[in-house]
Amino acid sequence: MIQQLVAGIDIGGTNTVFGLTDRQGKILVYGSLKTTDYPSPLDLVKHVSEKIKQVIPEGYYLAGVGVGAPNGNYYKGTIEFAPNLKWFGVIPMADYFSHSLGCRVVLTNDANAAAIGEMVFGGAKGMKNFIVITLGTGLGSGIVVNGEVVYGHDGFAGEIGHVIVIPGGRNCGCGRSGCVETYCSATGIKRTYHEKTQSASATPVYISSQEIFNRATAGDEHAKETFEETGNILGLVLANSVAYTSPEAIFLFGGPVKAGDLLLNPTRKSFEENLLNIYKGKIKVLPSQLDENDAAILGAASLIWKELSVKNPEVKMES
Amino acid sequence: MIQQLVAGIDIGGTNTVFGLTDRQGKILVYGSLKTTDYPSPLDLVKHVSEKIKQVIPEGYYLAGVGVGAPNGNYYKGTIEFAPNLKWFGVIPMADYFSHSLGCRVVLTNDANAAAIGEMVFGGAKGMKNFIVITLGTGLGSGIVVNGEVVYGHDGFAGEIGHVIVIPGGRNCGCGRSGCVETYCSATGIKRTYHEKTQSASATPVYISSQEIFNRATAGDEHAKETFEETGNILGLVLANSVAYTSPEAIFLFGGPVKAGDLLLNPTRKSFEENLLNIYKGKIKVLPSQLDENDAAILGAASLIWKELSVKNPEVKMES
Repeated sequence: MIQQLVAGIDIGGTNTVFGLTDRQGKILVYGSLKTTDYPSPLDLVKHVSEKIKQVIPEGYYLAGVGVGAPNGNYYKGTIEFAPNLKWFGVIPMADYFSHSLGCRVVLTNDANAAAIGEMVFGGAKGMKNFIVITLGTGLGSGIVVNGEVVYGHDGFAGEIGHVIVIPGGRNCGCGRSGCVETYCSATGIKRTYHEKTQSASATPVYISSQEIFNRATAGDEHAKETFEETGNILGLVLANSVAYTSPEAIFLFGGPVKAGDLLLNPTRKSFEENLLNIYKGKIKVLPSQLDENDAAILGAASLIWKELSVKNPEVKMES
Repeated sequence: MIQQLVAGIDIGGTNTVFGLTDRQGKILVYGSLKTTDYPSPLDLVKHVSEKIKQVIPEGYYLAGVGVGAPNGNYYKGTIEFAPNLKWFGVIPMADYFSHSLGCRVVLTNDANAAAIGEMVFGGAKGMKNFIVITLGTGLGSGIVVNGEVVYGHDGFAGEIGHVIVIPGGRNCGCGRSGCVETYCSATGIKRTYHEKTQSASATPVYISSQEIFNRATAGDEHAKETFEETGNILGLVLANSVAYTSPEAIFLFGGPVKAGDLLLNPTRKSFEENLLNIYKGKIKVLPSQLDENDAAILGAASLIWKELSVKNPEVKMES
């Protein structure tokens, strides 16, 4: 029997990665390219589509394409004014891929794709209400309610990174101040460590969150405090988030999560302390169960796999 | 043709009100009693049920009962550890009414009932994504996503009143500090005015938010500042809330909303200032379109009317 494959494409400011996935979440073929090498999005679509067509193995067909992209709008299939991409304005990326590959294409932002990936292939299997927080250059979030990602009236719901947690706090790239991502993203962690170790007048020298982790494990007090304070704020934000959708679990994804207990312990402590009584002891804060190298492709591909399993659940049993 | 009626029952700490409603949101019969006169919830159920049976007019039958109650759990139909009720523990209120009246009974908290009431009979007709905020002794919220109230994994989602907006801020009845409701509920407004007008050592004398409104319109600067500051915080909270579910509109309900522009102007100003760019200019902040006297009963009854209109939409056209 001819079997289904789904392509997952993750478009980032620097790199675009893609792969062909099967129903079990195995990635059969990987590809990647530099997004910045393609001044026109149509050139990128053409290149990626040709690569995908070339590598579909005998006995398989392409059942659909999922795309994760910054500022991706699920309803319209567009990338809209993404500050980290060189392409200007509103780009109908889903339509471009659909014409080029002749199949269904679903697009959303990378954090929403991560949430669906967690539900289809990761730790949120069987969960109907959960949140995924992605910690990277920024802080993204995908909120799932009743088994569906919350997109809101305009397709842009789930921006927990831009909740103002410290009014009048740190300046954010969005033009406002005190946003969660200025404290709790990988960049926020770097800023915190920088504040602790450099005098106000020194030229900013930021080291990576990986290096801060190395220093913390080597006993650097400033580095340890940095994770402690990051966890304190993140725990408060997660506790506040529970008051909106009361999830069963919150998954943390991204580089800083590799710090393990150094970040998770203060986060969980602050989380439980700041939770309203009725939620206490009920809600898990967990690291993502997706492999970091595969997550972007699997997350994007799961946009289609989720649709296919809903439409035709018995196929899931067969394969 | 025999027509459907739905009873709406709103159980409050002081009073319980109930009424029979028709499909157009007209309340045919009203009733009320003192909740505190009933030391056992079963006595209250018996009394209300008898009253309802007595007043069903000829040509109608009772198609269902909707109940709004503090700490109401939609999934279980229970009232759970409600601090403002004298009844102890977990009360299976929906089961009680169902046995007593022999029909479908749906129960949720009063703010969720208000949200469904707004959707079925008020300003949110036709909207799929919106939020209702109820300003009273506390601050309640009902969040609607894709046309359904968000209940979360445990039935207790939508507690925006207990989001911590000012870490380390005012003590809250929930045992924590800095919760939204300590600033933005009617009680919060009273506290703000009190802080402005009494010295720290004086015995607290709180005046009603209605009286603060009267003083503000008469030119009292402290009273005007009170509404200004309440709006500043409420606007920030609403802007943060948008980052979760990106609603089309946010409806404000309750006594303080009668202050009109005195509260709405600073709220809307702060809301727009604190909104992330992608949401700016898209989301309305509106007073509830439900009549305050009818809202509790209509909200509760709408729990059933919404189900009936989904199951049997053509009936809606007939009646």
